[in-house]
Amino acid sequence: MEEAKQISRMASRLVRGVARTMTTVAAVKTPRLTRAGRYISTSLLVSGGVALYASHQGSVAAAQKAPTTIDTSKFMAPPITELSVLEGKPNDMRTKMELMIMRIQSEFCRALEGEEGAGCKFTVDRWRRHNPSEGGGVTCVLQDGKTFEKAGVNITVMTAPLSKELQASMRARGKKLPEDKKFSFFAAGISSVIHPRNPHVPTIHFNYRYFEMQDEDGNNKHWWFGGGTDLTPYYLDEGDVKLFHGVLKSACDRHQPDYYSRFKKWCDDYFFVKFRGERRGVGGIFFDDLEDTDPEKMFGFVTDCADAVIPSYLPLVKKHKNDAVSEEERRWQLLRRGRYVEFNLVYDRGTKFGFATPNARIESILMSLPLHARWEYMHQPAPGTPEYKITEVLKNPKDWV
Amino acid sequence: MEEAKQISRMASRLVRGVARTMTTVAAVKTPRLTRAGRYISTSLLVSGGVALYASHQGSVAAAQKAPTTIDTSKFMAPPITELSVLEGKPNDMRTKMELMIMRIQSEFCRALEGEEGAGCKFTVDRWRRHNPSEGGGVTCVLQDGKTFEKAGVNITVMTAPLSKELQASMRARGKKLPEDKKFSFFAAGISSVIHPRNPHVPTIHFNYRYFEMQDEDGNNKHWWFGGGTDLTPYYLDEGDVKLFHGVLKSACDRHQPDYYSRFKKWCDDYFFVKFRGERRGVGGIFFDDLEDTDPEKMFGFVTDCADAVIPSYLPLVKKHKNDAVSEEERRWQLLRRGRYVEFNLVYDRGTKFGFATPNARIESILMSLPLHARWEYMHQPAPGTPEYKITEVLKNPKDWV
Repeated sequence: MEEAKQISRMASRLVRGVARTMTTVAAVKTPRLTRAGRYISTSLLVSGGVALYASHQGSVAAAQKAPTTIDTSKFMAPPITELSVLEGKPNDMRTKMELMIMRIQSEFCRALEGEEGAGCKFTVDRWRRHNPSEGGGVTCVLQDGKTFEKAGVNITVMTAPLSKELQASMRARGKKLPEDKKFSFFAAGISSVIHPRNPHVPTIHFNYRYFEMQDEDGNNKHWWFGGGTDLTPYYLDEGDVKLFHGVLKSACDRHQPDYYSRFKKWCDDYFFVKFRGERRGVGGIFFDDLEDTDPEKMFGFVTDCADAVIPSYLPLVKKHKNDAVSEEERRWQLLRRGRYVEFNLVYDRGTKFGFATPNARIESILMSLPLHARWEYMHQPAPGTPEYKITEVLKNPKDWV
Repeated sequence: MEEAKQISRMASRLVRGVARTMTTVAAVKTPRLTRAGRYISTSLLVSGGVALYASHQGSVAAAQKAPTTIDTSKFMAPPITELSVLEGKPNDMRTKMELMIMRIQSEFCRALEGEEGAGCKFTVDRWRRHNPSEGGGVTCVLQDGKTFEKAGVNITVMTAPLSKELQASMRARGKKLPEDKKFSFFAAGISSVIHPRNPHVPTIHFNYRYFEMQDEDGNNKHWWFGGGTDLTPYYLDEGDVKLFHGVLKSACDRHQPDYYSRFKKWCDDYFFVKFRGERRGVGGIFFDDLEDTDPEKMFGFVTDCADAVIPSYLPLVKKHKNDAVSEEERRWQLLRRGRYVEFNLVYDRGTKFGFATPNARIESILMSLPLHARWEYMHQPAPGTPEYKITEVLKNPKDWV
């Protein structure tokens, strides 16, 4: 009993601290960008293996084992799901996923800000869907920085009806959905694309997501995880690509010996621009519809992958962000960014899912597009040039580790 | 008999002249861009209502009524179809369409060159499909000019098997194609997108095409015309838009009193970016699957529409090409060009048809993309600004004439 009171006091103190931090976070966002109205000033804290819950009334506290140490004061904005809901289901995969993606968002944004000039920070845009009960997201964008030309890190947590179009596409992917039922889905995911200024720093993309689907009667339930991290260099530095793949492989190897090779191939196959006959970049890992293992194990795997983003990418940023750049190299970077746009608009499954979702928040989906792109008719790099070298790798993917 | 000899002599003289001109045309193209090998040095001449045909042997001449005056010496390159085939079928719609689009291509390219600085000319790229018997095209591109940032005018004449994917999409459009038959198609069309440098000069797109389709036994024949011309201004000059629509309306009114209003609405509906809730531009005319009238009448209509391109657009180029431009206006132009890319890659039927055609010539299809485009997160023009004014028109199409 005494222990519970102590925990309650700790929670109150922490919540007050968080409320103060949230005010600071709120000050970062520009008024024009904010759609969500006022931030919730209470939050969920999971600390030191013990979860502390403060209700809206600030009077109820409960203690419980939690798998990781999370301090929400460092989140870019308060979580999307109402606190009372998260408090009521601390072990629910929805709660765990939402807290994980918010932690990753914050850690990645802060790491990138560390590579920028002083005062260049992410703009935090916390938004709700048209129908606020369907959830929303937190989109963090840094534009026109010294190191990053456009960096977007978005989390989404939403529950919405599954449109007929999406239902058909789910069936095409092998999900067994009876024709006579209406379905709704829950999705929680983090998605990020970083377009650096220097052509010698590659673009990175990652996306980790958890889906649930069920019919209107709560039957025909499905759940799965998906995600991946992939690299798009403009110039080939083999050491960079090996480091990047090596870190991803380590994350995979901690879970299943065949994960890396399976998901590396999946990535090469997925990021393929058929009409160009080339891949978007040098790959990484990609997987979808993962549902054949214990969800807790899958969550552990996805968490490890998300935690591998910073060590796989930040060394490349630090190494190249001040490299000398010629006009020709900049032009090549912009041409390749045009190709990036082509993949994202024509093939990307997440973008298409967004286009097919009624009232989707297009700005958050297309945050992945570069600030600048270029298309020249019949541009072909001459054999032997560094520009040619990278296109050869895009046409014929290699094993890097 | 004497008359036939005279005609034969005239034809020989004209062909020699054409052969000389063709050598000059061939000199324009850069070696890197040429895929078609050597140009054919004979050509088909239709002059003064009398068609003069010179065979490969230069010995056969025939006289026949022809609907228009065409001098191939002014074409950007020799026609795609072999001369003997064209010679054999002067009244075939395939022949007439090929000659019409080649004439329009040349006239439009020369008119645009007239607005450029001295020496700034179109590069002429005559190409064949992977399987040369399937035809090819002539792609004319002018990049990085003083007036035009990227101008592409492409003609294609091809015969190819209809892929299963395209067969399904044809059925979805209402074409009755038996499931157990293999189909091939013939297509002849001109397609052009002009992206000027000055943000006060609108972008124009036009495309006129003729399709034929039949099964492997030569049965189940279908034919139709499609096309349209539409304008995408970055800033709204109502006089420009009225002139543009007025010229298109005149062309339509010469054929059917309801054509303009039907095709104007079709255009507004077609160039709609659903996920943005806005149209690509201020419209124009658009139609497809036109097959309900006599083909000769349809051809006359399509020809009139294609002939309306220069008078609908050149006055706007002349009027604005030297307008003063601020950095802010240039930035807005690039943002809107990003939207243009979105429409073309996500929705455009011609682009999708190209993506779905095996061994399609992607560079000619994506010639429509601008040299530069820009995407900013959450860019919203402030109410009352000229940038805001144009977006209002894109959201709520108006009647202009």
